[in-house]
Amino acid sequence: MSALPVFGAGIWHFATYLDRYATEGYGEPVGLIDQIDLAGAVGDLSVVDLNWPFAGFDGTLDDVRTALDRNGLRAIAITPEIYNRDYIKGSITNPDPAVRAQALALLHEATALAQELGCDYVKLWFGQDGWDYPFQVSYQDVWKLAIDALRELCSAHPDMRFVIEYKPREPRNKIIFPSAARTLLAIQQTGCENLGVLLDFGHSLYGLETPADAAQLCIDHGKLFAIDVNDNFRGWDDDMVVGSVHLVETFEFFHTLRKNNWDGVWQLDQFPFREDSVQAARQAITFLKALHRALDALDEEALAAAQANHDALAAQKLVQRVLLSSMVGEDS
Amino acid sequence: MSALPVFGAGIWHFATYLDRYATEGYGEPVGLIDQIDLAGAVGDLSVVDLNWPFAGFDGTLDDVRTALDRNGLRAIAITPEIYNRDYIKGSITNPDPAVRAQALALLHEATALAQELGCDYVKLWFGQDGWDYPFQVSYQDVWKLAIDALRELCSAHPDMRFVIEYKPREPRNKIIFPSAARTLLAIQQTGCENLGVLLDFGHSLYGLETPADAAQLCIDHGKLFAIDVNDNFRGWDDDMVVGSVHLVETFEFFHTLRKNNWDGVWQLDQFPFREDSVQAARQAITFLKALHRALDALDEEALAAAQANHDALAAQKLVQRVLLSSMVGEDS
Amino acid sequence: MSALPVFGAGIWHFATYLDRYATEGYGEPVGLIDQIDLAGAVGDLSVVDLNWPFAGFDGTLDDVRTALDRNGLRAIAITPEIYNRDYIKGSITNPDPAVRAQALALLHEATALAQELGCDYVKLWFGQDGWDYPFQVSYQDVWKLAIDALRELCSAHPDMRFVIEYKPREPRNKIIFPSAARTLLAIQQTGCENLGVLLDFGHSLYGLETPADAAQLCIDHGKLFAIDVNDNFRGWDDDMVVGSVHLVETFEFFHTLRKNNWDGVWQLDQFPFREDSVQAARQAITFLKALHRALDALDEEALAAAQANHDALAAQKLVQRVLLSSMVGEDS
Amino acid sequence: MSALPVFGAGIWHFATYLDRYATEGYGEPVGLIDQIDLAGAVGDLSVVDLNWPFAGFDGTLDDVRTALDRNGLRAIAITPEIYNRDYIKGSITNPDPAVRAQALALLHEATALAQELGCDYVKLWFGQDGWDYPFQVSYQDVWKLAIDALRELCSAHPDMRFVIEYKPREPRNKIIFPSAARTLLAIQQTGCENLGVLLDFGHSLYGLETPADAAQLCIDHGKLFAIDVNDNFRGWDDDMVVGSVHLVETFEFFHTLRKNNWDGVWQLDQFPFREDSVQAARQAITFLKALHRALDALDEEALAAAQANHDALAAQKLVQRVLLSSMVGEDS
Repeated sequence: MSALPVFGAGIWHFATYLDRYATEGYGEPVGLIDQIDLAGAVGDLSVVDLNWPFAGFDGTLDDVRTALDRNGLRAIAITPEIYNRDYIKGSITNPDPAVRAQALALLHEATALAQELGCDYVKLWFGQDGWDYPFQVSYQDVWKLAIDALRELCSAHPDMRFVIEYKPREPRNKIIFPSAARTLLAIQQTGCENLGVLLDFGHSLYGLETPADAAQLCIDHGKLFAIDVNDNFRGWDDDMVVGSVHLVETFEFFHTLRKNNWDGVWQLDQFPFREDSVQAARQAITFLKALHRALDALDEEALAAAQANHDALAAQKLVQRVLLSSMVGEDS
Repeated sequence: MSALPVFGAGIWHFATYLDRYATEGYGEPVGLIDQIDLAGAVGDLSVVDLNWPFAGFDGTLDDVRTALDRNGLRAIAITPEIYNRDYIKGSITNPDPAVRAQALALLHEATALAQELGCDYVKLWFGQDGWDYPFQVSYQDVWKLAIDALRELCSAHPDMRFVIEYKPREPRNKIIFPSAARTLLAIQQTGCENLGVLLDFGHSLYGLETPADAAQLCIDHGKLFAIDVNDNFRGWDDDMVVGSVHLVETFEFFHTLRKNNWDGVWQLDQFPFREDSVQAARQAITFLKALHRALDALDEEALAAAQANHDALAAQKLVQRVLLSSMVGEDS
Repeated sequence: MSALPVFGAGIWHFATYLDRYATEGYGEPVGLIDQIDLAGAVGDLSVVDLNWPFAGFDGTLDDVRTALDRNGLRAIAITPEIYNRDYIKGSITNPDPAVRAQALALLHEATALAQELGCDYVKLWFGQDGWDYPFQVSYQDVWKLAIDALRELCSAHPDMRFVIEYKPREPRNKIIFPSAARTLLAIQQTGCENLGVLLDFGHSLYGLETPADAAQLCIDHGKLFAIDVNDNFRGWDDDMVVGSVHLVETFEFFHTLRKNNWDGVWQLDQFPFREDSVQAARQAITFLKALHRALDALDEEALAAAQANHDALAAQKLVQRVLLSSMVGEDS
Repeated sequence: MSALPVFGAGIWHFATYLDRYATEGYGEPVGLIDQIDLAGAVGDLSVVDLNWPFAGFDGTLDDVRTALDRNGLRAIAITPEIYNRDYIKGSITNPDPAVRAQALALLHEATALAQELGCDYVKLWFGQDGWDYPFQVSYQDVWKLAIDALRELCSAHPDMRFVIEYKPREPRNKIIFPSAARTLLAIQQTGCENLGVLLDFGHSLYGLETPADAAQLCIDHGKLFAIDVNDNFRGWDDDMVVGSVHLVETFEFFHTLRKNNWDGVWQLDQFPFREDSVQAARQAITFLKALHRALDALDEEALAAAQANHDALAAQKLVQRVLLSSMVGEDS
């Protein structure tokens, strides 16, 4: 059996949530240190992605380090919260120059933290940068603001990597980076070597992409810096547990990564609104390990031959055989 | 010109919101009395739908009455909050019998309030009753729980009307009453005369229905007790301002209501996350008044003839002519 | 191991297709007798659903019988072609009374054939009955025409069963029977005991239903007369090979059937546009047999306990364990 | 009033259609010359896009020229049929090298014809180049084949322009050029100056793009060579008559073109399956002329100010005022 990948998770996986209806929340708030301890309790996680600012946390950075250490975790990334409070009409594309400056300052600050914690990258998710209504914005202006700010940020920190996590929509009805291709165009325009893509499987899926194809595109541009996995019903970012619905396409996604010798972290971006977060992570990883075994068992030569003929049936047969025997003897 | 309809709104139109990302909210909280004053400021609203409990409100019912009175508003409905805090895994279909009892108690309480305020109906929106994952529930059990509870509630208050506001999803990935037809089946099964449908235009639209057809179906079953309007991009309940996107289908919806002499309230269910709520309501009503003029101007005889032939082009021509001249001279 | 189900297929599975672009077809035309022989070549099929009229066939009914016999096949149903040539603006809801009469005559004729062949049911699929544009039809009129014609047809043949195969759209942009619930309402309105539902898994899926829930609803109304399976990407009726995408939900669908002791035919409705049709059927059945084994292996008691708590994670774990070991040792 | 744009149409607008159900067609076949005469009968069309080969036509090129001339029409483009008969598993990405060579030969031939007819461009629509099932193809291989063939074709004809008409899907479940951004990436990779984008409004809409934003992106890359308009319900390429559903977004699309001084043809790509094709074109143009008047009337300065603030309500108000009075006095 080939070596297992490194598993990770966004730390928010272990938080509780609220939404526009359940405004009092889906559970008691969980503090940052407790979130880290829950991540540690999963047992298979090696890295976490941390939000900045540390919401509702009044401890020190050393407290965070200590908590990470005792759980055998490393901060792989910082995700600055450029989609809360002050940024509801956008961060780097906000119509107000003062808010844009504030957003950029926060991004620099998050980068400094990422450097201090030895992170691999800073994750940029522009959930509030976009539009809701026809005619609301000048698309050209918004795009230019985004490119300029990205160039400024990434040029200022040549030793740090940055990733854009694209997403079609939510919370804005339309987000400026909705797809892999659009994001690659943006990255090209900035001219920044240290700016890449974080491909979230679920975003790709409900954005009408074929996630494995999107991954290949990013890889071919040298830009697949990171990935997230979860699942959904193809109409929204449901952030369900990996393997709930799209078993075959999740398998194809990881097959594409292996084929290209992509060796990054297999990272969870799930929102277990009503589920136990530790158990949700464990079951996702149990499934991912099954996929990993299936990848080992897959007849790559036969698959390549099938694909050379665009033979869907032959390919599916090979895939089902290994996928539908990937949990034999599993009892977790 | 025919008489204008009565306009109304859900009081939450004048609140501020939060979501799973902007957890600190899209604006400063607005108290209930302030919400009522904002509704009054719109100028064209006659009725409002109130949530119960009155969230974050420590005044008396008389304070509410006074606020309504000074703004020329009447409470048309009470919408009990059976989708917050305790009900994240369902209200009347919760797996825990104690929570189901608590939900029913809240519904009875809301009904008493509705009676006290002289409301027309109690609105039941089961946003948390449903499921998120395949295999999560027994569909038969969940359905039976829902029907039994509805029967118990509605039978207990034969003098009050109840409406089910159906919706395909959100916050649950799947909601038990997702469509007009499914809701009518449920109502039949309860055998309750005083239970009907609230048809939300946007829910119908993104649920793949033709809203005008869904309205006709409910009317033909004697069950169109109330309606809500808003707009969206057909993939989610965006709750945008009426008339933002689907002008023709909104017009068709109201045409169907008029054709059937349906004379209920034209009610707004919008969520102006980043917009001024009073202005959002005003613009919606400006558009609805334009539709109302267009209905007056429409050549009904010619339209009936076109429809008798299923002649889409002839029908569209008649419709465009009145719709695209409905705001002549308008300067609001 | 429990007894295998009876497998069937629509005979069109073994035809070739054309569409609005590939107007010259996806392959050489295959005659009816050849289609039957191909169905026989699959090896696991026991029944087929036949279109009427027999398109491009100039043999006798005895020729058809002979072909069925030599392949060990029985005609389970007749599907009259009320969506071709003369019916592009509707069959029983066509604006032209002459066309409506012609459609009804064809339906009676198809019923006579079904009786002669000893079929279980006549399948009614109203693909051209609906509308394409806003304002095109009077929904009330169209619905009434449909109900009246169904009543007339089904009352005239009390010894034959009829099924409505609902579908959200295609070829019409909107079809009059788009969902299980809407179809059940129609059936109720006709008052015909011998009229039921054919639930096509793919139609249900891309119509935003949960197929297992829709099946339960039909069963609880005593109306699940037949089912079809296939797969798609949730946005269209792709009619892909069973098990290509939605493994878990297909499993859940058959689990619901078993739980209710539903013992009808497991029938394929696939369109292998670019694939070998015999191989496409074989792989679908290979997958369905794996599901059947997984059903045998599923811990029903534990699942019921999980569902009683709406415990998605516990349920998924039980399901994955049996599903992902259902093809062990399989080498077909 | 500003000068009217040039109007055009794909010649297939005046054909009849068939699909996988109505295999006998939606009407009697219409020959090429008759199609041209119907295009002429519309009265406002100046250019047409012609398919090659001329399907079912046994006349000469001079016959075609004569027909165009007597109707005051010019061939603006040739659209080679690389999606029929031989190309059901792809044209330039077909797994069979012989088919790829044949496709390329056809493309060269179509280019020669375009030159002979003085066309502005050759339109490339790769409807059969893509995949249907997970694991069916190697995405890297398919993409490389496409880029190489495009480079070979476009380099060979530096004096002719080529456009890629992107589309998310249909007939393939997934098409290799599904979006504006992905197509721009491909064009960049070919390095061909004479290769651009044809943006079909409907494809953009149901591909989850904002069409006006996609247009701006293509313009900013100097690649918006041509556009097509039609309408749909956002889930499929319904090719409905322009202005049936998305009035505001169609208006926004043309507003973006005007703002950028884009002065190409306003071209129809409608499929009036069950409608009179001449009337369908006329009504589309009537609506487009109304949009043109509305563009003249729009307060651009106020709109720019609203957009500078991302003020959706202010923008919508300006837009509704001109759009909903754009057909005053219209009686066509």
